[in-house]
Amino acid sequence: MQLFYLADLSDSTFEFTEDESKHCIRVLRKKKGDELTLIDGKGTEAKGIIEQDNPKKCSGIIVAKTHHQRNKNYTLHLAIAPTKNFDRIEWMLEKIIEIGVDEISFIETNTSERGKINSERCNKIAVSAMKQSKQYYLPKINGITSLKNFLKGCETTSSKFIAYCPTPVTQTLFNQIPLPMPSHSILLIGPEGDFTQQEVEEAISLGFKPVSLGSNILRSETAGLVGVTSFANKAQTT
Amino acid sequence: MQLFYLADLSDSTFEFTEDESKHCIRVLRKKKGDELTLIDGKGTEAKGIIEQDNPKKCSGIIVAKTHHQRNKNYTLHLAIAPTKNFDRIEWMLEKIIEIGVDEISFIETNTSERGKINSERCNKIAVSAMKQSKQYYLPKINGITSLKNFLKGCETTSSKFIAYCPTPVTQTLFNQIPLPMPSHSILLIGPEGDFTQQEVEEAISLGFKPVSLGSNILRSETAGLVGVTSFANKAQTT
Repeated sequence: MQLFYLADLSDSTFEFTEDESKHCIRVLRKKKGDELTLIDGKGTEAKGIIEQDNPKKCSGIIVAKTHHQRNKNYTLHLAIAPTKNFDRIEWMLEKIIEIGVDEISFIETNTSERGKINSERCNKIAVSAMKQSKQYYLPKINGITSLKNFLKGCETTSSKFIAYCPTPVTQTLFNQIPLPMPSHSILLIGPEGDFTQQEVEEAISLGFKPVSLGSNILRSETAGLVGVTSFANKAQTT
Repeated sequence: MQLFYLADLSDSTFEFTEDESKHCIRVLRKKKGDELTLIDGKGTEAKGIIEQDNPKKCSGIIVAKTHHQRNKNYTLHLAIAPTKNFDRIEWMLEKIIEIGVDEISFIETNTSERGKINSERCNKIAVSAMKQSKQYYLPKINGITSLKNFLKGCETTSSKFIAYCPTPVTQTLFNQIPLPMPSHSILLIGPEGDFTQQEVEEAISLGFKPVSLGSNILRSETAGLVGVTSFANKAQTT
């Protein structure tokens, strides 16, 4: 089933962006009268009928709407220092969204290599991964912020983890996630050169638990993947 | 700590390939008399001293050897139908080797899109990921084979799983891996269009257990990643 994304489905009509119009009419060869499945990334699934099969501005009417609950019993906010080669983060973004994550932040640390991210591109990847994996919720992607600022904003969340290589391997993230699953969790992944001792100590003083991701040394983006999958697996523990 | 790979460390001297020589002498600027850490991908770690710092043929003597045990209490053989865009599989290879896998096979199925793989390139990725993640064992990478032939070769392994989208999400791989960890397991991941019903039935008749990887639809290479991480997580269950 092909899904089409439109951020606002509150109306009884729809009009696609130029990109989505082109994809719908030129690539998928949809025509006037065809039925489409639309999602808004906030849980709404709508049935739409094309009235104008214009490849630059496809529009139509909405004939039915249903609301989907989230398919996970937890939310996860991943905060990661972007890698020098941003391709690696883009790959990771696609993968972790397929697997299941709710919010992503990019963090500038003392040793991180990159201070800019392309938010528009990240959002495109997120929409595409959501559609591809047949999900109804679009993760929120935040711009880049300093570690200091990020930590300040985490005060009210109690389930907080910081992946840090020197942590004993007996203390893995997977084992440290409590059951039943905490409703909101934050996982912080460091840059290619890892966090500094001072950064980790600051996070710990603010309630973050240091965790290991196993005995192998993982690249930043692999650490992100393993972190998100560890939450998904823990939630499956019977 | 930088690791250098040489398939055979049984001798008391070493001589690098042209690639590894160039990397060692030109890129890392190592010189005659410098000490290096060498691994053979079979558990051996050796201390070597450079005698000839030739950027095309770096050689030297081995002064000490230690043997490392595997750092996992299970072995995992991942068999996957290669994706049309092989970049996706190459990227997955790097990631699953970082996370921990012992053997990888490429499978041709009824609906798979690609019949060829570049074994040399796959092996280079494997060596690089092993060194990067500071592991001492190189996974074995097999060429492409038909699903039929692959299944025939799995008879003696009792812990076998086939990821198949229509499997109920209550029956996830993570939950189906028994504890204590089976010493050898095989995980079979289908092509972009999934296995056919007939292929799955054949695998089941040969002892494969159908498993789900959760409620989201995952791309093939994401399924491989989640599968390998599920084994790693299960082994961490206390």
